[in-house]
Amino acid sequence: MALIVHKYGGTSMGSTDRIKNVARRVAKWHAAGHQMVVVPSAMSGETNRLIALAKEIQAQPDPRELDAIACTGEQVSVGLLAMALKALGLDAVSYAGWQVPIRTDSAFTKARIESIDDVRVRADLDAGRVVIITGFQGMDPNGNVTTLGRGGSDTSAVAVAAAMKAQECLIYTDVDGVYTTDPRIVEDARRLKVVSFEEMLEMASLGSKVLQIRSVEFAGKYRVPTRVLSSLTDPMISLDEEMISGTLITFEEDENMEQAVVSGIAFNRDEAKVTVRGVPDRPGIAYSILGKIADANIDVDMIIQNQGSDGTTDFSFTVHRNELQKTLDVLNTQVKPAVNAREVTGDANVCKVSIVGIGMRSHVGIASQMFKTLSEEGINIQMISTSEIKVSVIIEDKYMELAVRALHRAFGLEKAA
Amino acid sequence: MALIVHKYGGTSMGSTDRIKNVARRVAKWHAAGHQMVVVPSAMSGETNRLIALAKEIQAQPDPRELDAIACTGEQVSVGLLAMALKALGLDAVSYAGWQVPIRTDSAFTKARIESIDDVRVRADLDAGRVVIITGFQGMDPNGNVTTLGRGGSDTSAVAVAAAMKAQECLIYTDVDGVYTTDPRIVEDARRLKVVSFEEMLEMASLGSKVLQIRSVEFAGKYRVPTRVLSSLTDPMISLDEEMISGTLITFEEDENMEQAVVSGIAFNRDEAKVTVRGVPDRPGIAYSILGKIADANIDVDMIIQNQGSDGTTDFSFTVHRNELQKTLDVLNTQVKPAVNAREVTGDANVCKVSIVGIGMRSHVGIASQMFKTLSEEGINIQMISTSEIKVSVIIEDKYMELAVRALHRAFGLEKAA
Repeated sequence: MALIVHKYGGTSMGSTDRIKNVARRVAKWHAAGHQMVVVPSAMSGETNRLIALAKEIQAQPDPRELDAIACTGEQVSVGLLAMALKALGLDAVSYAGWQVPIRTDSAFTKARIESIDDVRVRADLDAGRVVIITGFQGMDPNGNVTTLGRGGSDTSAVAVAAAMKAQECLIYTDVDGVYTTDPRIVEDARRLKVVSFEEMLEMASLGSKVLQIRSVEFAGKYRVPTRVLSSLTDPMISLDEEMISGTLITFEEDENMEQAVVSGIAFNRDEAKVTVRGVPDRPGIAYSILGKIADANIDVDMIIQNQGSDGTTDFSFTVHRNELQKTLDVLNTQVKPAVNAREVTGDANVCKVSIVGIGMRSHVGIASQMFKTLSEEGINIQMISTSEIKVSVIIEDKYMELAVRALHRAFGLEKAA
Repeated sequence: MALIVHKYGGTSMGSTDRIKNVARRVAKWHAAGHQMVVVPSAMSGETNRLIALAKEIQAQPDPRELDAIACTGEQVSVGLLAMALKALGLDAVSYAGWQVPIRTDSAFTKARIESIDDVRVRADLDAGRVVIITGFQGMDPNGNVTTLGRGGSDTSAVAVAAAMKAQECLIYTDVDGVYTTDPRIVEDARRLKVVSFEEMLEMASLGSKVLQIRSVEFAGKYRVPTRVLSSLTDPMISLDEEMISGTLITFEEDENMEQAVVSGIAFNRDEAKVTVRGVPDRPGIAYSILGKIADANIDVDMIIQNQGSDGTTDFSFTVHRNELQKTLDVLNTQVKPAVNAREVTGDANVCKVSIVGIGMRSHVGIASQMFKTLSEEGINIQMISTSEIKVSVIIEDKYMELAVRALHRAFGLEKAA
């Protein structure tokens, strides 16, 4: 008998029939003798509906009140799932975040979990109940409801699994695992049976939407064995079948690790590039530029500075495409005159393509193989950024699919490990 | 400067445009120097939508989980209203019942308010904030969310007004007050400027749907001046105009009381009559019959027992029409054989018509004038029940409109007081 946490996404909870299927799957695990905690998302579309209502009232909704509204989608989900389990004859109880409580800081709409009190939940589990806890939300020190931001239910589930020392956290979603790349772009993309925590972290940060990045950080910090798997399979398949499906995120490099040097190709179409040209090349120039961008609350991704020959330098960085105009406004009004730059340019027609693999640590030449592959396809590289286990490039966005397919083939990702 | 509580019903909160109108009205009161607490219902249709979802999952939804779901409609309302006030430049804050907290017993789906802590709300008011509190809900001693049942937001508003010793509780709804009878049946029905607490209590219990009966009980117990008025007027009419509109529920009989003997005609189509005939006329027979009905959790309204001449008696009572079949089943299977009754009959084609008026206390002959009026219209009276300030009769339901119109005219209710 073990403690298992299940998390179900909005699509899995998307109708009362699907909720009944979720209940059947949870009941099967419970019948096998496991203590079950379930963390569901809001029914698909519900959070968007609530946010749209808020925006009809206030173009920039007040964050505290937005959280008070947005948290209700998950409250409905947990109640419905508790009823579905009771209808199957199980004992079940639902809790909102504040009832557990899941304590967070006060950063409304993007709060961080600080602690989880497991006393009440543990008592229910010991009494044989299935416990269902709202994802996405918690309570701050002043008794206000907070939400964790988009995808926050993944984080809730992993945090609950960590706090309760669960044997495994199963994230049920509408895909059946983590792939070498998006199968919609590369037909023979292959599901990874195992992926390391570090690789998963890079993939999440590079735009793979399977898991929210903060949930991966949580899984890593507390070493929670976490599996991504499909909620669309027959809920009554055997536990053995279920436990070898999906993708397991591991923390032991040599435990069942696939031996590929590169594990996956990630990409992101949401980037835009800005360049400040002809900036005097002197200490402090990076801060003069990026300090103003940070003050405007704009997130910066890749940053590159190239020294020129005339005592000036070109400074480039990428931001989210939605923030390109705002970024250009800040640069033109506050930065250009202050640093005496020659020119500010922006380009929304770019994308980021990355190769990720923990095997890169011990293999040289991976980056140059990537550059060679892109060069053979005639794709120009505009920016490069590397970490210990990934190489990212910014290229013109019309080449994105071509680049992903070429790299997938070049690194042999279609072959079973 | 006074503390004022506003309550807005589901129709008044029915769209984001209407919520903006509510905000304008509240802002007007705040601008006049009042401290404002607002208790809104869920947007119209929302509670029904949530209950329907629950019933798709579980035909008889678990009461605790149903409350966990049903409470979310008001949580959305309070957040949206807080945003609408902020959009007008006011400071506002929303609270769910558990955040105040509003403490209730644990009777899920029909909880009763036990206490309201005003510390947090008072601090906000003193800081100049408008405080918006969810209607319909509270928290039980175990930290579970409870709801107060249909119409519970009226009760929440009056209870908050009582706990905070508000100067007045204004119940904004889609009618502009309490009428001498339903204007859809009697064209020249007249709005009452003032109605006594006792009359309002009778009217609510007799089927007038303007106010939930428990809110009237609360208003009476704590002597909360409560006014029913329309939310459909221009939100910017003057406070003076607003304070003389609607119907005020008073506790002082001689203070502005209209001097009519009868204040209103109430009616109820939801009744059904059952009769147990030929029961041995001996002590304990009423309990033998009604004890089984109570065990089956069926509410009984009027009760009449007539002594016969042959040592037997006929025993009649009314129940809600939806429970007629269940009542007959209990009587036929459990009561008839036990008390050796001759016959059990049921009749769903009845209705109750009542005259209500605090002036009846000091006037004789009111009941007989009622019976004379009905007799002149050829309407047979099947059952009669009286209290100090009302007379109710059960008649065949096809005569209901005729009876209401005749009584309205006979007691001169169309004339201004």
